[in-house]
Amino acid sequence: MVNRTQPLPTQPLKQLADSAHTERCTGLLEAIEEDSATLLDLANQSVVSARQFDRNKLTQLCRLAAKYENSPAPVQRPLTGKILISAFYEPSTRTRLSFESAWHRLGGDIMSITDPATTGIAKGESYRDIAEMLSGYGDVVVLRDSNGTAIYEMMKSLRIPIINAGNGTDEHPTQALADMYTIFKWRPALLQTRVAEQDRIRIGIIGVPGEMRTVRSLLLFLSLVPQAIEEVVVICNSDDVFSPGQREELEERGLRLRVTADMEAELPSLDVVYINAIVWSGGGYQEHGSEYRLSKDSPLKKDAIILHPLARGEELSTDLDETTHNWYFAQARGAVFIRMALLTCYVWLF
Amino acid sequence: MVNRTQPLPTQPLKQLADSAHTERCTGLLEAIEEDSATLLDLANQSVVSARQFDRNKLTQLCRLAAKYENSPAPVQRPLTGKILISAFYEPSTRTRLSFESAWHRLGGDIMSITDPATTGIAKGESYRDIAEMLSGYGDVVVLRDSNGTAIYEMMKSLRIPIINAGNGTDEHPTQALADMYTIFKWRPALLQTRVAEQDRIRIGIIGVPGEMRTVRSLLLFLSLVPQAIEEVVVICNSDDVFSPGQREELEERGLRLRVTADMEAELPSLDVVYINAIVWSGGGYQEHGSEYRLSKDSPLKKDAIILHPLARGEELSTDLDETTHNWYFAQARGAVFIRMALLTCYVWLF
Amino acid sequence: MVNRTQPLPTQPLKQLADSAHTERCTGLLEAIEEDSATLLDLANQSVVSARQFDRNKLTQLCRLAAKYENSPAPVQRPLTGKILISAFYEPSTRTRLSFESAWHRLGGDIMSITDPATTGIAKGESYRDIAEMLSGYGDVVVLRDSNGTAIYEMMKSLRIPIINAGNGTDEHPTQALADMYTIFKWRPALLQTRVAEQDRIRIGIIGVPGEMRTVRSLLLFLSLVPQAIEEVVVICNSDDVFSPGQREELEERGLRLRVTADMEAELPSLDVVYINAIVWSGGGYQEHGSEYRLSKDSPLKKDAIILHPLARGEELSTDLDETTHNWYFAQARGAVFIRMALLTCYVWLF
Repeated sequence: MVNRTQPLPTQPLKQLADSAHTERCTGLLEAIEEDSATLLDLANQSVVSARQFDRNKLTQLCRLAAKYENSPAPVQRPLTGKILISAFYEPSTRTRLSFESAWHRLGGDIMSITDPATTGIAKGESYRDIAEMLSGYGDVVVLRDSNGTAIYEMMKSLRIPIINAGNGTDEHPTQALADMYTIFKWRPALLQTRVAEQDRIRIGIIGVPGEMRTVRSLLLFLSLVPQAIEEVVVICNSDDVFSPGQREELEERGLRLRVTADMEAELPSLDVVYINAIVWSGGGYQEHGSEYRLSKDSPLKKDAIILHPLARGEELSTDLDETTHNWYFAQARGAVFIRMALLTCYVWLF
Repeated sequence: MVNRTQPLPTQPLKQLADSAHTERCTGLLEAIEEDSATLLDLANQSVVSARQFDRNKLTQLCRLAAKYENSPAPVQRPLTGKILISAFYEPSTRTRLSFESAWHRLGGDIMSITDPATTGIAKGESYRDIAEMLSGYGDVVVLRDSNGTAIYEMMKSLRIPIINAGNGTDEHPTQALADMYTIFKWRPALLQTRVAEQDRIRIGIIGVPGEMRTVRSLLLFLSLVPQAIEEVVVICNSDDVFSPGQREELEERGLRLRVTADMEAELPSLDVVYINAIVWSGGGYQEHGSEYRLSKDSPLKKDAIILHPLARGEELSTDLDETTHNWYFAQARGAVFIRMALLTCYVWLF
Repeated sequence: MVNRTQPLPTQPLKQLADSAHTERCTGLLEAIEEDSATLLDLANQSVVSARQFDRNKLTQLCRLAAKYENSPAPVQRPLTGKILISAFYEPSTRTRLSFESAWHRLGGDIMSITDPATTGIAKGESYRDIAEMLSGYGDVVVLRDSNGTAIYEMMKSLRIPIINAGNGTDEHPTQALADMYTIFKWRPALLQTRVAEQDRIRIGIIGVPGEMRTVRSLLLFLSLVPQAIEEVVVICNSDDVFSPGQREELEERGLRLRVTADMEAELPSLDVVYINAIVWSGGGYQEHGSEYRLSKDSPLKKDAIILHPLARGEELSTDLDETTHNWYFAQARGAVFIRMALLTCYVWLF
């Protein structure tokens, strides 16, 4: 029960911008030379997989995101009159709001499909027919679907670009873009073509790459900057860590991978720790995850940062929120700006 | 499971505009002399029934729709600051998105009511009270309700225009407007005051006019151009084809109607075949519809076009999609433009 | 079943503005001297409780609301580019549309969360994490939650303002603002610093102040103008009328309160009768409310006005709709303008 002793909001709000954070954006901006032309390739393309990006595109997207994050509200609204169809056939408040916020901030309008039960897919309508409808009514589609192949089916007949906001256990490329953007804000030097051996980082990923779409996309993006990474340590107690061909592909692309089940032994030497809500197939936190819990008492390296795509469960203790390891809130905030950067590319389409 | 062999979207999108189609719009534009003044009547009116339209209004709406479809994104946003309340008490993704897209493209804002369970009607609130609320909060209402009289009840106290997006089994006038727009794009000459006997068309409608709102509205619109229609053949195996007075009204308006149950016998002589998802009362596809299925193997006239308001079920085979009979996709695309034309009339209201 | 004899909407709509009503707005405008500076305090604040307002702020908000209600659509769109997150974790069409309409009319964009089942709160996400997300993705949050302390929890970490649209049984301050705005439009003289004894009003409130959030907030606002109120009569047959400390606080603030169960005895001497849908805890209309029903036959004072936050149930007969006692429809209409006034304060934030 609320009572009259509850403190009223008479104080001004906390400062809107975190000044240390703004400095980070400036650092990233200074580290990257502008080359917007490379983003033109994205103007007439759907975004389905992290495989579509090369290092230059990734770098320029991060640059543009930092520019947006660093500046006050943009005066221009380049997407005025353009309609985003936000189709979340699998519910997600966080990713949906992040995309919608980015589109709105660029001036565009939005039509949402959030109730799967009322849509054509539920009624057995074919992806071809749905793609026809979306092509006629919007300018860009953002799709989340628990069926991994739905987006590929739709692309066969869509006449407008579609962006993958999570397709089954396959990929979630824009989440991974947000992860990369956070890492580069933290250490802009990692974008250099040559990174000195002592500056290379060690990244720990707690989760099952073969079954987690965010991890799958992140590993593909990390393999674009192998010169900056000493090693990626996959921390997981599953037998089926990788899906068929996944490890081979990543190693071909230059990533050094190691798998271990012992998180505690690895933490003291990791620069980046990526952890995910433990929702592994065939079991839950009790069965697979209780040993993989990060808290203030974890043996973290002093400068280590923690990333988490959120929403979190018990695997990430809130006692870390007030520590310098907490970069997951910055990661969530940055997600809007990297999506603004990506969506800006569609301005050239129109 | 998605694998790395899925083709990535590295190719440019299919051409956004279908050039043959654009030519059709031009043809329609050239066939109609502009007379926008006639649309002024719609500025302060609700749209409930196809009976509200005369041939001139229908023609001018089609002209304006063709103008929109034929031109790139309009620069003007005449509905800026105006709010559409999109109230779908009976779910419909397709019609809802089509209306919302049209309103957005004209610059307006939208508030959606898509969850019937949370609305006043579900809580037993009276239509009068709901109409009061809508009048205060929006500028135009689009309503779909499974109760056919709801819109008439609301109109008694609404102080803003309301548009019927499907009221029970009664009418769906804007869907029928989209149907007519498609037919006129296909044959602009049908709009002439005098159509030579050999140019008149034969239209087959597969469905029950007495129980299908889209068919009911379409027949009323067709009766505005009896000079262009040799015969409308209603194809249906029901005993109760028409609702009381329906056939008489249509014949008074000049339409020649015939009813038959034998689709195969009629197809070779039909110019337009209109088919609907088989959702007849007291039975389904198995009981009433399995003999009414169109496919590539149907004995269609060479130049015949097929219309379907979509979403489709088994009655319309996807093997027709790549044939020249497929005008149902064009029909779906045109639905946005004809609704833009209709909504443009409200600009004069403000 | 709808038939062709239904009257078609060929008549122009009823007049959009009620001219008597417009006069009322003018009266209120003339009674209040402009002092917008006092509203600056609201620019960087959340709005949680009626306790945050003093008489001057209340007065100036009503003045601004009357200005909006009295003028045609505003040309300026001061909230262009700003995003409202409309988070209704407890469903409400009426309050949600009223807020969204106000925000749209000021030019802003909206992202809605209307399906509680899909949101983080349902998944057990902490308020802290949700507040982080909302801070990153929007500019202002409107929250309704059946948990009364949720808004206080969120405020601890939110970096953007939040507005209380109903928190459990605690408060609903913007509904009460709409109530006060209606009362002042009816009698602008009540805003004078000194009100002659014979001009003071008697207000009856049918409901349980301890358990109804709208009543709780209204009483706090009424206590800002004790010089204009002879007495507030709480009409209720419950044993627990007030929550702990509630009556004491109101009396400290200068309100004269009396409790009675006998509505009929009070009605002839009440100037304002405030009635609410009877949804009392531990019982319904049958048990608690059937004796508290207003109709044309109720012994109302000739000039008395009835207020009701709507949606209504059986406690308010529709036979009152066409009488001069009906100010509840004006109250509903005014709700958009008072919310526009409140939201305008955030323009200074940006």
